[in-house]
Amino acid sequence: MSALPALARRTGNNSSSAIRDLLTITSQPDIISLAGGLPDPELIDRDRIAVAAKNALGSLGAVQYTETNGWPGLKAVLAQRESVLCGRTIAPDEIVVTHGSQQALSLLAQVLLDPGAVVVVEDPAYTGALQVFRNAEAQIRALPLDADGMRVELLAELLRDGVRPTVVHTVSNFHNPGGVTLAPRRRQRLAQLAQQYGFWVIEDDPYGEIWFDAPAPAPVATYSDHVIRLSSASKTVAPALRTGWLAGPSKVCRAVELLKQSADLCGSALTHQITAEVLTDTDWLAAHLTRVRAAYGERAKVLCGAIDATFGGAVHRTDVAGGMFCWVDFCDGTDTTALLAAAVDEGVAFVPGSAFAVHDDLRNSMRLCFTTGSAPVLEEAVERLARAHARLRRR
Amino acid sequence: MSALPALARRTGNNSSSAIRDLLTITSQPDIISLAGGLPDPELIDRDRIAVAAKNALGSLGAVQYTETNGWPGLKAVLAQRESVLCGRTIAPDEIVVTHGSQQALSLLAQVLLDPGAVVVVEDPAYTGALQVFRNAEAQIRALPLDADGMRVELLAELLRDGVRPTVVHTVSNFHNPGGVTLAPRRRQRLAQLAQQYGFWVIEDDPYGEIWFDAPAPAPVATYSDHVIRLSSASKTVAPALRTGWLAGPSKVCRAVELLKQSADLCGSALTHQITAEVLTDTDWLAAHLTRVRAAYGERAKVLCGAIDATFGGAVHRTDVAGGMFCWVDFCDGTDTTALLAAAVDEGVAFVPGSAFAVHDDLRNSMRLCFTTGSAPVLEEAVERLARAHARLRRR
Repeated sequence: MSALPALARRTGNNSSSAIRDLLTITSQPDIISLAGGLPDPELIDRDRIAVAAKNALGSLGAVQYTETNGWPGLKAVLAQRESVLCGRTIAPDEIVVTHGSQQALSLLAQVLLDPGAVVVVEDPAYTGALQVFRNAEAQIRALPLDADGMRVELLAELLRDGVRPTVVHTVSNFHNPGGVTLAPRRRQRLAQLAQQYGFWVIEDDPYGEIWFDAPAPAPVATYSDHVIRLSSASKTVAPALRTGWLAGPSKVCRAVELLKQSADLCGSALTHQITAEVLTDTDWLAAHLTRVRAAYGERAKVLCGAIDATFGGAVHRTDVAGGMFCWVDFCDGTDTTALLAAAVDEGVAFVPGSAFAVHDDLRNSMRLCFTTGSAPVLEEAVERLARAHARLRRR
Repeated sequence: MSALPALARRTGNNSSSAIRDLLTITSQPDIISLAGGLPDPELIDRDRIAVAAKNALGSLGAVQYTETNGWPGLKAVLAQRESVLCGRTIAPDEIVVTHGSQQALSLLAQVLLDPGAVVVVEDPAYTGALQVFRNAEAQIRALPLDADGMRVELLAELLRDGVRPTVVHTVSNFHNPGGVTLAPRRRQRLAQLAQQYGFWVIEDDPYGEIWFDAPAPAPVATYSDHVIRLSSASKTVAPALRTGWLAGPSKVCRAVELLKQSADLCGSALTHQITAEVLTDTDWLAAHLTRVRAAYGERAKVLCGAIDATFGGAVHRTDVAGGMFCWVDFCDGTDTTALLAAAVDEGVAFVPGSAFAVHDDLRNSMRLCFTTGSAPVLEEAVERLARAHARLRRR
């Protein structure tokens, strides 16, 4: 059998597949998993999607091939929504609809990066981005997060020291895995640096609409056209629509479109039409988002409350204001990879910080996902975690 | 603005986008287009798809993320179908469901090819394959087609001369654009060469089920496990499901799965479930395929008959036994790029052979698609072509 040389070269270091292996182990029914990163399917409005599917299938266009950059009706809807969000006009030809926003990221990396190009990510980083940038053979630099998101002042230092990134990637709202949101002043500063030094910001924003008490700040893209925004209907409507998009300068969109043509020809006219219908049903959408925000907000509160009550000063956790994740650092030296083994014995799972680590080892951290558990389940999960923690400390 | 260096390097020579530009011009309603490559949407059973969508949306799993290599229920169905086709057991872990078979091709190129690797294609070639192999910076060698498909004896010569391809790509059934089918003896020979020299055959087979009078021959994959088969529900059920797949050795599937994870995480559980339901509704599927075969078969007969009656000895055309295309060579020196300009003036469009050319210029050839026209429309199209041809010859 022939070898697979190209792949071996590109996928040497793959923490994401380690997470997948873990998720396979922890999918047993007696384990409460805080390890996932999935929306709660019970909160997805299957009836509304079924109606939209039926409506779409009334027309021939819903079953045929569609334009490579997306079904025009959906592009128009997304351009309108992005315009409102960014406070400036974004035209339909500044949108490419992709097969989830992960595809946007993957195509962008191919468009923007040559091997050896410098890419700045966050530490901890979204593993799907790390994988893409590693496949592109980029030289990866990582900046730590604090409560206000990426420490942009350290980026300014890197730039002053002569580092010249091609791309800076940020999950600006309700970070995966870090839970934090990039503060408005840092957004402006990041945009200004992008202008000054000519790099691209990829503002990866799948969670922005899942805010709890107050809307997310204005996007980084508000402040500069050196920003390419990515978003998705996966967390707001349904993952199975596989409808993500990028909003960026039309020359970037044309380049992405050209690559997408050879990557998969085009998206699904059917799921694009379903997405367009539900996003323009503004009454339904408002009520639906209110329901999702309330449910996740409540679960986040329960989880964070239980963590505080149980672990007190032994941990530091992010303030969760939206999204799906809480990031927890142990201040008592607990190694979360060791903790995970004990936790699985106790019937609870999470993802250790090391899975998201770039420069730091993040061995005392963990990511907890609160979306798929009810309040009593989340409380039970934290009790099990506490038992595992106590066992580990006794050794 | 930053440059887009990576893309510029990869997309220097792009005949496929030339076709797209052409298709844009020829989408005017007064032009009869034989240039497309789309199934007739009127023959897609939207009612059956709507029922399957409704059924799928009865379960939570249809709206959630699914496995990267495909919804397990669909993988099982496809493994069963491929087993029957190839006359040997193909396990579900030898299947990866992709976003159209174009994605399978694109991911395979990344898995199998390093820059400079030799890839053998057909001449004329499927442009989607050419684009993928050029993006992978492969060294492309092309073999001419005759009435029995790829001239495999010329591949044997190349191999004897020391050429060592990593991949040989063939559209084995009802070639796009060439219309021809690889003869059974050549399939065996190709498989034997793959075994002997250790290259991979990519057997790209989106049209195999669209036969007119007799089923397509047994796949190349029947004869060797050095064959990776690609197929799709786009031509049999609906393009908008974006459901393609590859069937190949599990180590190839694992490598493709790993890349797909960073390319787009996973496919749509919804469209996978729809596809699984309609493919296992064997009564419906048999009746549906009979209807599609009869319609396309009739249209092919009408188009070929009109070509013969109108152009006689001035052209040579392929015998069309299935698929969507007829390939026509002018024996009278007609340059089809010049003919196209005249044809558009007369109200008909096609794709000139040069768009599919690799080594040969194929300037006297053209591809005609017969799927989307009724009999009178196809006859009118050939009359217009004849007027354009006559005008050109008078010059």
